[in-house]
Amino acid sequence: MKKSIDPGTYACPTPTWCIGTYDEDGKANIMTISWGGICCSVPPHLTISVRKVTHTYAALMRRKCYTVSIPSVKYLKEADFFGIASGKDTDKFAVSGLAATHSKIVDAPYVEEFPLIFECEVKHVVEIGGHVQFVGEIEGIRADEDVLNAKGLPAIDKVNPFVYAPTSREYWSLKEVVGQGFSSGRVFMK
Amino acid sequence: MKKSIDPGTYACPTPTWCIGTYDEDGKANIMTISWGGICCSVPPHLTISVRKVTHTYAALMRRKCYTVSIPSVKYLKEADFFGIASGKDTDKFAVSGLAATHSKIVDAPYVEEFPLIFECEVKHVVEIGGHVQFVGEIEGIRADEDVLNAKGLPAIDKVNPFVYAPTSREYWSLKEVVGQGFSSGRVFMK
Repeated sequence: MKKSIDPGTYACPTPTWCIGTYDEDGKANIMTISWGGICCSVPPHLTISVRKVTHTYAALMRRKCYTVSIPSVKYLKEADFFGIASGKDTDKFAVSGLAATHSKIVDAPYVEEFPLIFECEVKHVVEIGGHVQFVGEIEGIRADEDVLNAKGLPAIDKVNPFVYAPTSREYWSLKEVVGQGFSSGRVFMK
Repeated sequence: MKKSIDPGTYACPTPTWCIGTYDEDGKANIMTISWGGICCSVPPHLTISVRKVTHTYAALMRRKCYTVSIPSVKYLKEADFFGIASGKDTDKFAVSGLAATHSKIVDAPYVEEFPLIFECEVKHVVEIGGHVQFVGEIEGIRADEDVLNAKGLPAIDKVNPFVYAPTSREYWSLKEVVGQGFSSGRVFMK
């Protein structure tokens, strides 16, 4: 028997991604979001949503590009801090001690210490409600060599990202492989 | 030292969500996606992307609504099957043995056995590339009572969802709480 619940942002799991931009003074800023995801395979795009009051929103509208730096569990405290403080009054890179590296592909900075970086150019801006969605084409990817698998692609267990649980505001780590995509379900195929 | 990688859909973690729609014959269809996420808090919206060749795309364009049924690890094989077979030639509910329940809120079916359901009305359609993105407002939520926490909201450990790892096509389970949102990062606040 299912119970009805008032609408809310209770879908899970959601990612924890850090969005890098330059503000109007050219200062590197970084903000953590969980409202985002991959949204197209060819060409590859990913989407992020931010509120208009954020420092990141103004930067996104001005330079129309951003990076996504994916934190490993090791940098959870820094990533959470990036979601609490505002770039309007805080240099989050300086306070956290992490380094802002300028992307060679888009006009935005990324977090040098995080293992996996996506460099994106804004292609669509969608006014939804309290949040505005930015759909960005992935123009470049940079990864630490020690998180790559045998095919040269980032391995999720080596990246060691964490997910955000909206209803409890908890961050959760990943445990183990429980199935294989486009394979586990073949037991139902004739 | 970071290595440059050609653009691809390598961001992680991504969710495993099952999209419920009715096709032109009124038959319940279900399709698994990992390109999606929450995209607005107020009012609550979530986004999904599908390719135009899919049976789900035609249904979304026709009825402009959908459900998201979140599978627990227990139903991984069924969820993976929903992403392999096509509703054009397969009744995926019948083959899997799971039940399609008609939503009372939107004109779409959901998976009765899955613990957490979102009932969405399409508000924006964004043509990105190979995928088209549907931004849907969450009009209703239904959850099994045994996955609710003390506040009456779905608890991620009770829902027991799994994430998809795009580079390895693996499904991963969640392990444990490794931090608290809007709290763990306060160590950097003055």
